[in-house]
Amino acid sequence: MFRSTSSAAFKAFQNQLHRGVQGSRLPSAIRSFASGSTSGSTASYRSQIGTILVASTTAVILTQLWNSRNENGTIKCDDGALTIRTSQERDDAYVTPPESEKPKQHIPSNKDPKYASKEEIDKVVELLKQKLTKGDNQVSTNPDELLSHGVSANTYHAAAIPNVVVYAESTEDVSEVMKLANEYRVPVTPFSGGTSLEGHITCPYGGICVDLSRMDKLLELHEEDGDAVVQAGCQWEAINEELKERGLNMFFPLDPGPSACIGGMMATGCSGTNAVRYGTAKGEWFLNATIVLPNGEIIKTRQRSRKSSAGYDLTKLFIGAEGTLGIVTEATIRLAPILPTRVAVCGFPGVEEAVSAVGEVINRGVPMQCVELCDTLMMEAIGKFGNVTMELPSKDSIFFKFQGSNPESIESNVKIVEEISRKFGGSNLLFAKNDKESDELWQARKSAHWSAMALVEGSTCYSTDVCVPVSNLPKLVKQTKEDLKENGIVGPILGHVGDGNFHCALIFKADVPGEFEKVDAAAHRMVKRAIALQGTCTGEHGVGIGKREFLPLELGEGTLGVMRQLKNTLDPKGIMNPGKVSDSL
Amino acid sequence: MFRSTSSAAFKAFQNQLHRGVQGSRLPSAIRSFASGSTSGSTASYRSQIGTILVASTTAVILTQLWNSRNENGTIKCDDGALTIRTSQERDDAYVTPPESEKPKQHIPSNKDPKYASKEEIDKVVELLKQKLTKGDNQVSTNPDELLSHGVSANTYHAAAIPNVVVYAESTEDVSEVMKLANEYRVPVTPFSGGTSLEGHITCPYGGICVDLSRMDKLLELHEEDGDAVVQAGCQWEAINEELKERGLNMFFPLDPGPSACIGGMMATGCSGTNAVRYGTAKGEWFLNATIVLPNGEIIKTRQRSRKSSAGYDLTKLFIGAEGTLGIVTEATIRLAPILPTRVAVCGFPGVEEAVSAVGEVINRGVPMQCVELCDTLMMEAIGKFGNVTMELPSKDSIFFKFQGSNPESIESNVKIVEEISRKFGGSNLLFAKNDKESDELWQARKSAHWSAMALVEGSTCYSTDVCVPVSNLPKLVKQTKEDLKENGIVGPILGHVGDGNFHCALIFKADVPGEFEKVDAAAHRMVKRAIALQGTCTGEHGVGIGKREFLPLELGEGTLGVMRQLKNTLDPKGIMNPGKVSDSL
Repeated sequence: MFRSTSSAAFKAFQNQLHRGVQGSRLPSAIRSFASGSTSGSTASYRSQIGTILVASTTAVILTQLWNSRNENGTIKCDDGALTIRTSQERDDAYVTPPESEKPKQHIPSNKDPKYASKEEIDKVVELLKQKLTKGDNQVSTNPDELLSHGVSANTYHAAAIPNVVVYAESTEDVSEVMKLANEYRVPVTPFSGGTSLEGHITCPYGGICVDLSRMDKLLELHEEDGDAVVQAGCQWEAINEELKERGLNMFFPLDPGPSACIGGMMATGCSGTNAVRYGTAKGEWFLNATIVLPNGEIIKTRQRSRKSSAGYDLTKLFIGAEGTLGIVTEATIRLAPILPTRVAVCGFPGVEEAVSAVGEVINRGVPMQCVELCDTLMMEAIGKFGNVTMELPSKDSIFFKFQGSNPESIESNVKIVEEISRKFGGSNLLFAKNDKESDELWQARKSAHWSAMALVEGSTCYSTDVCVPVSNLPKLVKQTKEDLKENGIVGPILGHVGDGNFHCALIFKADVPGEFEKVDAAAHRMVKRAIALQGTCTGEHGVGIGKREFLPLELGEGTLGVMRQLKNTLDPKGIMNPGKVSDSL
Repeated sequence: MFRSTSSAAFKAFQNQLHRGVQGSRLPSAIRSFASGSTSGSTASYRSQIGTILVASTTAVILTQLWNSRNENGTIKCDDGALTIRTSQERDDAYVTPPESEKPKQHIPSNKDPKYASKEEIDKVVELLKQKLTKGDNQVSTNPDELLSHGVSANTYHAAAIPNVVVYAESTEDVSEVMKLANEYRVPVTPFSGGTSLEGHITCPYGGICVDLSRMDKLLELHEEDGDAVVQAGCQWEAINEELKERGLNMFFPLDPGPSACIGGMMATGCSGTNAVRYGTAKGEWFLNATIVLPNGEIIKTRQRSRKSSAGYDLTKLFIGAEGTLGIVTEATIRLAPILPTRVAVCGFPGVEEAVSAVGEVINRGVPMQCVELCDTLMMEAIGKFGNVTMELPSKDSIFFKFQGSNPESIESNVKIVEEISRKFGGSNLLFAKNDKESDELWQARKSAHWSAMALVEGSTCYSTDVCVPVSNLPKLVKQTKEDLKENGIVGPILGHVGDGNFHCALIFKADVPGEFEKVDAAAHRMVKRAIALQGTCTGEHGVGIGKREFLPLELGEGTLGVMRQLKNTLDPKGIMNPGKVSDSL
């Protein structure tokens, strides 16, 4: 799920998107952040819409930030949640929110003596400039670029900027950076799509941001094997577009937020709406990975065969490690055949009945690519603001994306689902008659987030991500709704219900004092409830800095202790993305 | 793939199985190894057929071993490949083959001073007897049991017995063992189904064998969530039988050799014929695991929700680690709905055409549960010895197991496959008309291994397991066939071709001097060819002691170095299943 403000500028941009206008020119400082410089890359490709979506959002926020410097040099973010310093103070490269505002999210100072001094970092920057000379302006200390790499419009967590941004163009470049960082004990934070919702890209200890967005090439495509070798800066939508352009009827089925790149997708162990059919990044979609270790050494986790039982599964060790053990620079990804799909939506008397119906549909083995829950409030928001011509149910509803090798098998499965839905009180299953209707219905589901924000004029959205065993989902939704009602919070619900993964769009006005704190506290209560229901604090967004405090409760000190051992042995100097995943790593 | 001798006794047993006779009583010493003592377990269940299959094979071999002690106390295995010592020498607990016979498979002596002395081990045995008193005879130094735990009829690798076998009945029991082993530096080798083909259970440094076969309980079944919590000693077939008995239309889709248990399946990162549809143990079938660490500490890797991005993926760290980092005692497994299937077989002009047809079938997204290759020689063996009434093609053939939510969708997909097969020269696709024919065809495929051995009277079979990108499979098969022909080796081929995973049944007579060495050398050449074709030395059997020498070639020293770092940090005393995976771990 993607988070942003519902600012007028963004709405205008959204409308542009709806009208199919693409490629509008962004301010250069922003553009270099959002799309990466692609100069010199021959096979470079990008999903323009996705890029613009992120870039535009970021542009709005950063412009607001930049324009609102006040006299004492402090930038106040317009939503009140971010408090960051100016570029003049970037040598300190550190931002901490006032203790009173965010006591739990305090990030330690980059003055930690275990890391390089300011003088040493300056020296490293000079050395980097001498070494990385193959591409254009690979080493930057431009204040705009530092800001756009350390601060994200996608989160409300405390943010901090790096001392320097390095645009890597090859695995060897990343290795050069890590060798220097290792020698001088400089913190390194990897950056690919920059779409993280949990503050993964922020640099609490300053140091080097390694931007991988120029590494956006599809290096090898093996059609017969159904796999491809890609660089870490490839966006998943861009890969799928490229496959389409090359005439392949295949796709890469992991579908997190727009503009997410392979590097970040692996780092967070991402998933998305397709996970109910294809599983997550923790499944078998990444056959191997090329990794630069904290000491600069380059390894490849394994060969390209689909299966291997040869030694420890190092690919998986780096998937979900959030860049704290090393930097993924390349990966072999598996592709899946594209099958015909058709969307339907069905309203139920309540979330419990909807979830029960989904359980039975899945246990019957009906082929489904996606199964998405929207609660009544979310359906109403979509109905009002989602640009849908079809009449949607104003009920707790399920969007089903049926999948089949031919239209007949889909239609026979629709009958099964209709029958199961009726059994649980579902009525009027709305089944798209053709591809156009199918696209419209799916677009409605995809508009959920923006529609939710439109419920409250001038609002923004705090997105949560928890996951529980499917049978516990109705209980969690019920408790959450009661909590939100008690606290006067508008919070429509959206879920990858086939997996028990659940997002609540907590709508609030950033300029009303106390509103952020209120939704933040509600989100934390939801996480604790999910953990109590045998679930997790994050199903697909990752821990970053946003969920660190919940790991001891969820996993226990022993399990965290093993994670700490792994961290300490692979990154003994603690330079890889410090401050993420756990305070104690 | 399962390896055994084609002895008269086993053939008699096989016939028993075909006649549906189950549960024949085995000699008690053997029985305790093969099926585990299940006394006192309330929900204990086992796949009788699978258990008998392994037990019988083992019984034959071990009886032969035991009866053939010669005057100087040495046991000579009748197939000439195993050379092990008697129980009188078990205090040395170590067996090494003469250097001249197996120079590459030399296993270091258990006299390694980093491990406990004989006196210390004796003390640990006494302490174990004092501590583990809840179950019956949990601690055994019975020579028969030591032999049956250290030596397997499934491999030709050098074998060695433990000093003591401990029958764990709970995670806490395993923890007690590990605490003592850690304190006294005693090597520990985990044992569940004992079906490994690569010598995982052998104890080159003696020490403690922790037998998990009494931990065979299904602890929780969550029908709505499609998952179950099981102990490590559960056999996969037994789990599926239990689900059937409880009336659930679900199954656990990982299907390695008969009698394999959850513990070993996780340890080897197993798969089987269903992998083309459901993936492997390295996918998302294990939601979490309870692990006893080398210091005796118990951790649970994560909660029970289907997805989680909370911290490092520790579940995956232990999957494929072959018991060298800790012992899995429980796991939450995911279940899949059982769908109707139907089997078909089609002959092709050659392996290349067969593989190309499979590639197109898969890329078209035709739902397949299994896609299995048998070469002409294997098809002829099955035709002669596989008890099939239907006429099978004497050609390089593919067995397709179609899957669909209803019979109509299967039939429409058969048409697609027929058309694709014709395009690649495939003729007379033989499609089972009903479930009976379907079962018979699948049984024919399943009889491949035994049928292959029947090609040469009195022979036995050396099974290999390599995996390459699917498009490289025809090349590997061609090179292999030429090699076998040049060297006069009978070697029918069998492959999980949808994954590029490939087994060659190298048939040889164990009593003819030099035959074992000849097939062993051929297998090694095949592994090297697979690695050169971007493949792996093992697709699903694991490394054990049999494939250790190939890891540097396949993975490189850097990657192995990271594995070594992980091993050293989690098991600093090197007591967990020493000698497996890599010489240098």
